Amino acid sequence: MNRIEALKQKAFEEKGFDGFLIANEINALYFSHCPGLACLLIPKIGENKAYVYNVNYEQAKAEAKGFKVELVKRNENLMAKIAEQAKAFKIKKLAIDALNVENYRKLAKELRGKTKLSVKGSLIWELRKVKDEEELEFMRKAGKITNEGMKTAYEVIRSGIKEIEAAAEIEYAMRKRGSWGTSFETILASGIRSAYPHGGCTDKEIRDGDLVVVDVGAAYKYYRSDMTRTLVAGKPSQKQIKLYEVVKEAQEKAVRAVKPKAKAKEIDNVARTVIEKAGYGEYFVHGLGHGVGLEVHEPPTLNPESKDKLAIGNVVTIEPGTYIIGFGGVRIEDTVLVKKGGAEKFTEGFYTLERAK
Amino acid sequence: MNRIEALKQKAFEEKGFDGFLIANEINALYFSHCPGLACLLIPKIGENKAYVYNVNYEQAKAEAKGFKVELVKRNENLMAKIAEQAKAFKIKKLAIDALNVENYRKLAKELRGKTKLSVKGSLIWELRKVKDEEELEFMRKAGKITNEGMKTAYEVIRSGIKEIEAAAEIEYAMRKRGSWGTSFETILASGIRSAYPHGGCTDKEIRDGDLVVVDVGAAYKYYRSDMTRTLVAGKPSQKQIKLYEVVKEAQEKAVRAVKPKAKAKEIDNVARTVIEKAGYGEYFVHGLGHGVGLEVHEPPTLNPESKDKLAIGNVVTIEPGTYIIGFGGVRIEDTVLVKKGGAEKFTEGFYTLERAK
Repeated sequence: MNRIEALKQKAFEEKGFDGFLIANEINALYFSHCPGLACLLIPKIGENKAYVYNVNYEQAKAEAKGFKVELVKRNENLMAKIAEQAKAFKIKKLAIDALNVENYRKLAKELRGKTKLSVKGSLIWELRKVKDEEELEFMRKAGKITNEGMKTAYEVIRSGIKEIEAAAEIEYAMRKRGSWGTSFETILASGIRSAYPHGGCTDKEIRDGDLVVVDVGAAYKYYRSDMTRTLVAGKPSQKQIKLYEVVKEAQEKAVRAVKPKAKAKEIDNVARTVIEKAGYGEYFVHGLGHGVGLEVHEPPTLNPESKDKLAIGNVVTIEPGTYIIGFGGVRIEDTVLVKKGGAEKFTEGFYTLERAK
Repeated sequence: MNRIEALKQKAFEEKGFDGFLIANEINALYFSHCPGLACLLIPKIGENKAYVYNVNYEQAKAEAKGFKVELVKRNENLMAKIAEQAKAFKIKKLAIDALNVENYRKLAKELRGKTKLSVKGSLIWELRKVKDEEELEFMRKAGKITNEGMKTAYEVIRSGIKEIEAAAEIEYAMRKRGSWGTSFETILASGIRSAYPHGGCTDKEIRDGDLVVVDVGAAYKYYRSDMTRTLVAGKPSQKQIKLYEVVKEAQEKAVRAVKPKAKAKEIDNVARTVIEKAGYGEYFVHGLGHGVGLEVHEPPTLNPESKDKLAIGNVVTIEPGTYIIGFGGVRIEDTVLVKKGGAEKFTEGFYTLERAK
């Protein structure tokens, strides 16, 4: 079943809506295979519409599959245009993925109470979080390219190189192998800044003995990947090794626990228990992982409060970490597919504190 | 006057609000100098609060200037927490920069009608669109690095290289010179795809005679730059040269027309008139430009419907283009500062269709 038909089944047949407004650009890309659209309107009865400003009009006409492309002029009120079409389609119960409060009010005003509006972005996430074969092909490729970037990290990181220079080499290696840019801003945080999970990447020089957290992701055909390794420039200390081994064991055990129907919070608990038993519980300051796809942070979510259950076709990160202020951080992360029998790793290898010889 | 004081002046003294909720992450970065915050609450009377989840808590405590940092737990209702604090501050009229309709409803519910809510993101844009000296220093640097990337483009683009390979070289050159990643996904569109203004970057091989639109930007300390040039792999045709000269004249004249108090739509009109007189008016399918700063698309906007006026300290792009389906596109873009007497270019040079010899 294609994506539009799947949405119609879920929203119209099962939930009783008779129209869906898709205002989030990534959701619009998911259904149309075309970037840069203003929004989509999918009616229960009638022709699907894609709305686009002039700058992307020709591209949309060539690339948006399954939609009649409608030009939006700069001085037009888009919400009024949507409302007019919703009336023409006789939509009585319109689902919306997401709107800011200002556009929501504009739309409601134009509809004059004749169409009931409901924000139902969760229905689209139910579809997006189960990847189809095409998506998995792109994500496997993004993972392979990310592995090549990490190989470069283990080759170039050494005492004396700047964080930003190492990032340049890693990103270059991924681009040369076909990456569509980076999935997110590369984190390459060394020394005490490695204790900030989102420490970014600065012009600080990496020094002998620094812990270095490298969090990178390639993208392929709009699909993303996410991988973290931690290494030491020079010879690791006993304390660094101990911290690393704990995180590594937590990550391995959590990956092995991944399977369809598992509760996300229980996978989190597998990793958290390893880290707590080693006495580092207070330093694991984030959840175990998150879904990945067209965006780098998607449902399902893996943390102690998550109500999500894993299902075949989910792609998630497994990324325990420990962060000790004034000392440094360790994180190990892979992007994995949930499949029958367990996890398939899209990123893998380099489970070591030691740089390449 | 610092940024928080300027906001208090504008929102509290001039507009009568007694609190401001800043929920947009980039706005929060602007006021706190710290990334990764969940939101800020600035009261007329009381201590400014920055709300942050555990993952970024230590970094926020070290980097968020002018705010008391409050930890938000994963299972806490952030909007309820904000409402509680707003009550403690006795806020009666709370301005909000931006919220999705779901969070807006949650907040309104928790406040039980005792605090009036108004969406006033425009007040923050009034501040952000006038850059201060520190911002201009970072943006000049971002522009200089972008120029180095464009120099590389003119060196590497030739018949036989893939679009994505050329992008790899350009981004690498910028990273090596200190860029904080890219300001946006590089566009490097050749041949007939150059007629799509947002044509992206593919593994297509560039061929002799192709028009190649290169749209890139470096970033420095969260500030962005934006620059486009168009060149030809091989010897340009007469039609390519004619199209190019028209766009070049339009861009030059528009840059010269930039000055404080000029109407944005009149600057657009300077460029549009050149292109229309040459008979290419229908192919200029977008506005002349947009503001740049912490984001790559900001106010003010330069197009025929814009109501904006330029002011000293605005940083904007000037980027006329013409796009002929089946033939190709030409765009020339610089990022410029509006200052007394005219424009200062942050990006410049390479106004030619011919690659470096």
